[in-house]
Amino acid sequence: MSALTREDVTSMILSAKRQAGLTWEGIAEAIGMSPVWTHSAAMGMNAMPADKAEAITATLGLPQEAALILQESPTKIWSQTVPTDPCIYRLYEVVGVYGPTIKALIHEKFGDGIMSAIDFDMSVTRVENPKGDRVKIEMSGKYLSYNAW
Amino acid sequence: MSALTREDVTSMILSAKRQAGLTWEGIAEAIGMSPVWTHSAAMGMNAMPADKAEAITATLGLPQEAALILQESPTKIWSQTVPTDPCIYRLYEVVGVYGPTIKALIHEKFGDGIMSAIDFDMSVTRVENPKGDRVKIEMSGKYLSYNAW
Amino acid sequence: MSALTREDVTSMILSAKRQAGLTWEGIAEAIGMSPVWTHSAAMGMNAMPADKAEAITATLGLPQEAALILQESPTKIWSQTVPTDPCIYRLYEVVGVYGPTIKALIHEKFGDGIMSAIDFDMSVTRVENPKGDRVKIEMSGKYLSYNAW
Amino acid sequence: MSALTREDVTSMILSAKRQAGLTWEGIAEAIGMSPVWTHSAAMGMNAMPADKAEAITATLGLPQEAALILQESPTKIWSQTVPTDPCIYRLYEVVGVYGPTIKALIHEKFGDGIMSAIDFDMSVTRVENPKGDRVKIEMSGKYLSYNAW
Amino acid sequence: MSALTREDVTSMILSAKRQAGLTWEGIAEAIGMSPVWTHSAAMGMNAMPADKAEAITATLGLPQEAALILQESPTKIWSQTVPTDPCIYRLYEVVGVYGPTIKALIHEKFGDGIMSAIDFDMSVTRVENPKGDRVKIEMSGKYLSYNAW
Amino acid sequence: MSALTREDVTSMILSAKRQAGLTWEGIAEAIGMSPVWTHSAAMGMNAMPADKAEAITATLGLPQEAALILQESPTKIWSQTVPTDPCIYRLYEVVGVYGPTIKALIHEKFGDGIMSAIDFDMSVTRVENPKGDRVKIEMSGKYLSYNAW
Amino acid sequence: MSALTREDVTSMILSAKRQAGLTWEGIAEAIGMSPVWTHSAAMGMNAMPADKAEAITATLGLPQEAALILQESPTKIWSQTVPTDPCIYRLYEVVGVYGPTIKALIHEKFGDGIMSAIDFDMSVTRVENPKGDRVKIEMSGKYLSYNAW
Amino acid sequence: MSALTREDVTSMILSAKRQAGLTWEGIAEAIGMSPVWTHSAAMGMNAMPADKAEAITATLGLPQEAALILQESPTKIWSQTVPTDPCIYRLYEVVGVYGPTIKALIHEKFGDGIMSAIDFDMSVTRVENPKGDRVKIEMSGKYLSYNAW
Amino acid sequence: MSALTREDVTSMILSAKRQAGLTWEGIAEAIGMSPVWTHSAAMGMNAMPADKAEAITATLGLPQEAALILQESPTKIWSQTVPTDPCIYRLYEVVGVYGPTIKALIHEKFGDGIMSAIDFDMSVTRVENPKGDRVKIEMSGKYLSYNAW
Amino acid sequence: MSALTREDVTSMILSAKRQAGLTWEGIAEAIGMSPVWTHSAAMGMNAMPADKAEAITATLGLPQEAALILQESPTKIWSQTVPTDPCIYRLYEVVGVYGPTIKALIHEKFGDGIMSAIDFDMSVTRVENPKGDRVKIEMSGKYLSYNAW
Repeated sequence: MSALTREDVTSMILSAKRQAGLTWEGIAEAIGMSPVWTHSAAMGMNAMPADKAEAITATLGLPQEAALILQESPTKIWSQTVPTDPCIYRLYEVVGVYGPTIKALIHEKFGDGIMSAIDFDMSVTRVENPKGDRVKIEMSGKYLSYNAW
Repeated sequence: MSALTREDVTSMILSAKRQAGLTWEGIAEAIGMSPVWTHSAAMGMNAMPADKAEAITATLGLPQEAALILQESPTKIWSQTVPTDPCIYRLYEVVGVYGPTIKALIHEKFGDGIMSAIDFDMSVTRVENPKGDRVKIEMSGKYLSYNAW
Repeated sequence: MSALTREDVTSMILSAKRQAGLTWEGIAEAIGMSPVWTHSAAMGMNAMPADKAEAITATLGLPQEAALILQESPTKIWSQTVPTDPCIYRLYEVVGVYGPTIKALIHEKFGDGIMSAIDFDMSVTRVENPKGDRVKIEMSGKYLSYNAW
Repeated sequence: MSALTREDVTSMILSAKRQAGLTWEGIAEAIGMSPVWTHSAAMGMNAMPADKAEAITATLGLPQEAALILQESPTKIWSQTVPTDPCIYRLYEVVGVYGPTIKALIHEKFGDGIMSAIDFDMSVTRVENPKGDRVKIEMSGKYLSYNAW
Repeated sequence: MSALTREDVTSMILSAKRQAGLTWEGIAEAIGMSPVWTHSAAMGMNAMPADKAEAITATLGLPQEAALILQESPTKIWSQTVPTDPCIYRLYEVVGVYGPTIKALIHEKFGDGIMSAIDFDMSVTRVENPKGDRVKIEMSGKYLSYNAW
Repeated sequence: MSALTREDVTSMILSAKRQAGLTWEGIAEAIGMSPVWTHSAAMGMNAMPADKAEAITATLGLPQEAALILQESPTKIWSQTVPTDPCIYRLYEVVGVYGPTIKALIHEKFGDGIMSAIDFDMSVTRVENPKGDRVKIEMSGKYLSYNAW
Repeated sequence: MSALTREDVTSMILSAKRQAGLTWEGIAEAIGMSPVWTHSAAMGMNAMPADKAEAITATLGLPQEAALILQESPTKIWSQTVPTDPCIYRLYEVVGVYGPTIKALIHEKFGDGIMSAIDFDMSVTRVENPKGDRVKIEMSGKYLSYNAW
Repeated sequence: MSALTREDVTSMILSAKRQAGLTWEGIAEAIGMSPVWTHSAAMGMNAMPADKAEAITATLGLPQEAALILQESPTKIWSQTVPTDPCIYRLYEVVGVYGPTIKALIHEKFGDGIMSAIDFDMSVTRVENPKGDRVKIEMSGKYLSYNAW
Repeated sequence: MSALTREDVTSMILSAKRQAGLTWEGIAEAIGMSPVWTHSAAMGMNAMPADKAEAITATLGLPQEAALILQESPTKIWSQTVPTDPCIYRLYEVVGVYGPTIKALIHEKFGDGIMSAIDFDMSVTRVENPKGDRVKIEMSGKYLSYNAW
Repeated sequence: MSALTREDVTSMILSAKRQAGLTWEGIAEAIGMSPVWTHSAAMGMNAMPADKAEAITATLGLPQEAALILQESPTKIWSQTVPTDPCIYRLYEVVGVYGPTIKALIHEKFGDGIMSAIDFDMSVTRVENPKGDRVKIEMSGKYLSYNAW
């Protein structure tokens, strides 16, 4: 009755990665996807297509059942309404400070609508800078227009 | 005893913009700053250098006292812990879903630290796409390393 | 300095409707839109295209500035995380009880994705029934598939 | 002293379904009920009549005690006041944006009352559309009129 | 533009009652309804039928527009999730302590369903008792059975 | 070191009741108390006098230590500030909608004070009604007057 | 239509007290009540008997209507679930740290019941002490025993 | 790796007390401290001096390691912001209703400062009274004056 | 009836400071106190001794009544449980990250007790540093030992 | 599958420290770091450089895997938005009372920016004082200036 859970799969991935001395870049390359998507799917924040689920299972030596679980649509849950980790909080702060600005510029450039968080992709890169290197985050989401009917 | 408040200045800017038929792009160009920064400073989420405060005051025909207020360091307040506006909520959702991923990749690429939300800039652009145009948000923040002492 | 606000416009619409003895069905018909959309735009939960904003302004005898405000993209705010009004709470309860079921069936019928609340429309109708008439709510939203990249 | 709990039964159903490669449509058909009701009862959000509880137990090969538990009136609990899963959040957003509109139209069409969430049923269907298929949710609840006494 | 609001009407009723030295029992008798319903409708927690709205308007000398407002379906709002007033808190405590018990007994006596809070009435009476008089609250609500479909 | 806990006792009672096919009415009759009190004491929301604790222990075949635990004053905890179960929520809604009314009538009938939730009893009964049977809840609590000193 | 409110009365009392250079001890003595009760009634946390309401009105030179308002049963509201003022927070902390202890000792000394907060009185005194004077708070509330029925 | 925790020690104390039929008064007397302090230290809300930790360990027959743990400074945690147990809630209510009064009287009697909750002691006693015995709670805390610098 | 409030005084101080082009350092020097204490008392977070209240009133040209209000013990309120302003949030983050560490070191260095926030003072200084100047915050609070009784 | 977790490492450190009778000062000295940083890294609130992780592992006799875990960037979580432990709460209170003051002085001394909580260090020391020893907390964080772009 004790089937493998998604939490088990996440924990197996983290453990296999640590023991093999792998990086997310490396795992992503091995399965032919981006590091952002690969990490989020490994954490249970995205579902994997069958071939990617099998590729990561093979790469990390996970049991076959893991590949099935990685293909299921996860229920995405975060338990902290305001995240306490300083690295994640700074992103929350950006939404609080600049959210209304992003909204105003989307309306100015596109009309009455939003940026999709579903038809969406993102990258995180390191940009060299003599005053101190910078983190660059690029998000791209499809513009969705409100309906009038 | 009823001095001009920052809320008054924000409301004067919005009203002058509507009456003059201006855009944020246009106002930003007039004062020689980016649209993201210009809007956020106008909303009371950033302080303006003296010359920019005077430029926007002149551009929009605001009273002289407004230029002083725009130079003060604002207390940045947002009252909704979870924003309800769908356009802003999608950004909050991105932080919930991808926050741990951004954290993991920053640690992998830089070490133990964070992306600053203070030494920070951002742009919002429209990217044409045959399947539907896309919103592109680019954030850049200085990497800050944790201290050990 | 005291420009007309969106709250003023909402309150003018409600007052004009009461004095003229109109219904939402009637106002919707007058401007050629559905009652659901018409009410929500009047309440500041949707932006109106220019012609509809002018039509409702003319229908209800509102000042010209109201038509401009009705065309702006509103910031959608609800202040009660859990709504207390019994009529609205029942809808919240439906989301709590049946939300996971709707999610499971969307995944089963479409794949890993969601129903859009932006490319979305809805109707509310009365269905006669000998055991007591029933409220019928029909929602239709575009299916959006998660990206993998 | 360790009797079977309802959580055990839910987990057994999910596991048996996965192993047998069944769908909710298929299980629902096997027990002669709708997919929405079948899923929600399997998740502990509705009680099953005796014959349906026995039918699902037989279909999925569950122990006999499971059929008794499926007949008990469950305590319906959801732990996230605001659901974080994007697919369920969109429904919460619909209640926030359109809740007051649904209320206004119920009052206009019926009088002072509500739509029941108890004497209630719902369906979820896929509607083909050249611009992208759509999710259609139909809810039907008995109108209940407030008492005056 | 400053129409009479429901809050104005509530406040007029309270003021007229105080000045005339009336009781809720007295007002209820004057309009031929129960004290519980009369008070709750006066507070904006129930809508009045036209004849009762006119009766209370006449009884208390309110302006004619008040009678129209008293007939509208109010949006029922309470702002304290946990009420602080000791008299009301005790009722909240009763729900916390005895809520699961009431649920269990309803299921035992009726089946899987609830007591309606819409098709509902209530009385509050004083019962003499040599050890100290007692407050008696009687609630009666229609039993509603859950649907299976 | 693993003594029997109150949660264990509650769970033993529920299990014994299910296996023996008993009802709360039946258990209450067996120990000579009301069903409301019996259920609430079994759930850990009231302490039992020694003879009742022994009677229920004997009736259900519980271990002797259970009788001791049932006599201890429980710490009454409910974890949902706003209950989600629809059957219990309706009672919470009644407090929100009618709480101020009950308060006003207690003050009118008794003076400045409250209804005790400690020196308190309650019954739940089924009332036949041709339009649909009704749930009747009767609460009786001692009136307590505020002190002035 | 702008009747005197309880907030007005509270504010008049505070203003009259400041202007006359009075103390709460002094006002309490003038009306023949304790300082604790006098302050709390003046703040709208207790209702005054008619003679005390008239006495304080006379003492402070308030308008006659104030005496009527001071006799009404106030709705006791505090808006901070956790009080921030350090002087009041320390009391909240005492409840958090010692609440379970007080409960255990009440049960040990009296049985299953509580200390009433209604049939209740309190004093605050200064106790000289060579190591630093101490605040002494004495509370006295009637023991109320839980009912079994 | 499974060292004894403070929770284990608390649970051992409660169990030993129940089995030995002891009271808090009795345990307190055995170790030469007050019942309030003894109970709170046993619950992990105060640290014990070495001799008292050894005395209670000997009295109740606890393992030697328990005496070490009872001497550590505990992290004082309460998980319910608003306590639900009626006996503890009444104390919370007293803070809400009378907190501002206690603050005003401390300021009047001492100056600008607070009552310490650290240099603090308390007793709970039973006071006989023909109208019903009363619970008397006496708190004594050192007055601390705010600094100006 | 509209007496000067503390909020009025705070706002007058801010306005006078802006018009006179003063700094907090300057005002503090003028009244012979530290900048931290001076600012906090001006904001209503500390009470002023009579001579300091008169000094600041004279320095800034405030009305005489302001000096009286500045001497009253303020009720210290902050409305954001988690502060959103980035400058203040960083301090909150320090408490979250390092709070348990400060607690552990206080217990190691002093025993079972706390640092007083009442008998407390603080300074904020600028420290030159070739890698970027640093903010230095020094807090000093009296150690208070827990009582055992 | 049960790898060592960070919680295990924290608990091993606390246990080894207790058994060896060490202090945080002592452990810090042994690894050549400050006590504040050492404790916070041991608690999972900072990552250790490799040599320090190995040093503490050797000092306390932890398994080799612990050294790897101590080098990972932890997710910093605190579960109490408002800390209840009195020693930590006082720090939270300081942020509430003096946060706006610190902000004002940083702006006055540096310009529009903040004190970093990342490029940050802190010490806790005991200062002898005839009126009672004092806790001294010194924080030093790099000043970060807001960007304008």
